[in-house]
Amino acid sequence: MLSSARAFDGIQGVYRHRSATTGTDMTFSVFVPHHEDGELLPVVWYLSGLTCTHANVTEKGEFRAACAKHRLIFVAPDTSPRGENVPDDPEGAYDLGLGAGFYVDATQDPWAANYRMWSYVTRELPELIFAHFPADPKRQSILGHSMGGHGALTIGLRHPDRFRAVSAFAPIVAPSQVPWGQKALGTYLGPDPAAWRKHDAVALIEDGARLPELLVDQGADDQFLEQELRPELLREACADAGIGLTLTLRQGYDHSYYFVSTFMADHLAWHAERLG
Amino acid sequence: MLSSARAFDGIQGVYRHRSATTGTDMTFSVFVPHHEDGELLPVVWYLSGLTCTHANVTEKGEFRAACAKHRLIFVAPDTSPRGENVPDDPEGAYDLGLGAGFYVDATQDPWAANYRMWSYVTRELPELIFAHFPADPKRQSILGHSMGGHGALTIGLRHPDRFRAVSAFAPIVAPSQVPWGQKALGTYLGPDPAAWRKHDAVALIEDGARLPELLVDQGADDQFLEQELRPELLREACADAGIGLTLTLRQGYDHSYYFVSTFMADHLAWHAERLG
Repeated sequence: MLSSARAFDGIQGVYRHRSATTGTDMTFSVFVPHHEDGELLPVVWYLSGLTCTHANVTEKGEFRAACAKHRLIFVAPDTSPRGENVPDDPEGAYDLGLGAGFYVDATQDPWAANYRMWSYVTRELPELIFAHFPADPKRQSILGHSMGGHGALTIGLRHPDRFRAVSAFAPIVAPSQVPWGQKALGTYLGPDPAAWRKHDAVALIEDGARLPELLVDQGADDQFLEQELRPELLREACADAGIGLTLTLRQGYDHSYYFVSTFMADHLAWHAERLG
Repeated sequence: MLSSARAFDGIQGVYRHRSATTGTDMTFSVFVPHHEDGELLPVVWYLSGLTCTHANVTEKGEFRAACAKHRLIFVAPDTSPRGENVPDDPEGAYDLGLGAGFYVDATQDPWAANYRMWSYVTRELPELIFAHFPADPKRQSILGHSMGGHGALTIGLRHPDRFRAVSAFAPIVAPSQVPWGQKALGTYLGPDPAAWRKHDAVALIEDGARLPELLVDQGADDQFLEQELRPELLREACADAGIGLTLTLRQGYDHSYYFVSTFMADHLAWHAERLG
């Protein structure tokens, strides 16, 4: 435990552990609302975007009031492995390497040893959370922002029985078709786009993945909207697949946590309805 | 304007201007809720604590949802002048100099030229705000945290006709009687404690300042509670003076923004009731 503070009648903690998956120390935050001894609460997984750590949403996300109201545990992992021996983009690009794990298990050198965020977020961290926090594995949901929206959509689509709700703020919906995604998936998974499809929400839907519904909010003034995010591709894929997508374009909003925090309570209320 | 972003259907801006009062550039943030053209809204002044800038509360204060709901403008100034030629504590102490203006007009060298936060916050910044934002000068209130709680209480007590509501999170209530305050007031105002009394909420009340009511929340696990904050001194002074103080000790809460953000909406609802 790195820190622990009471907030909204619960506990906001920050923790670090040695990850066997990434071969590094990993830091994450957990908010646990007030609860009775022995009681298990639903757990919401929040995946962050490029350049973020657990700290961005923990400080700026404004999720605790809603999590206290609906009694939801909120878990925020880091976005990549970190440490002196972890490879980074040689030019220090913000969209590759540290802070830019893209929620995949890299297959290419030198990334493959540490950049295993898919396995970390879907296997190792859940085991740790369910072992150490009063979280109910039968009531999980997932959401994320930008690169983390990509993570939430792909992880949600590939685990339809695990998550009762899947939503995103300004997600990268089709990384195979946009510069951020082509760079990251090409680097981590190799040049063959066939290997990228299981890490691309639109491609997963095209290939048959199904969820009953998705909730997506997108700022209309987001600087990354047209080149990197392209929500219309998700709209088309969901329409073709019969997935109930609620996609709202929010006039005047950008890509920042001012946007995320504005709609966080709405998303968590939507999750809470589905988590029971 | 340094930045502007839509949030909670309003605009969160950050601005910088040349201050004639401090002789430096000064940065502040303003949240303006959605409003009609020509409409004036009540304005809440928020004063921050030691080491903070406008950014801490702007990012971590979770005030925008409540300000949007109650339609309050929220102004957050910096805590001291800043710049290359501004004197600082020679040892870089966090509780004196930069980030620690204590909301006084310094009379002692080398501080007197720039450290004029009392005049800046009570005169220059209000003139600028009322000239450039849709803020109603007849509906003002003030609150603050820690050193900023001290600022809110002293400014409020000395302007009973200006502010319709005065509240604080974990304020320094009697700087003349605690190490932080003795160091700062002694440095900025000189060694004679008589000069400190108009910058000490408890002393102001003892000397006859009156407000109908005050709202104070204080974390019971605040590490500064017993040595620096001492809310019992405010309780005694208000009881003797007939000031209606609502002071709540919040079990388990510390001095951080996890505490402030938890009770921010309650304070703003209390302000909104009084701002009409």
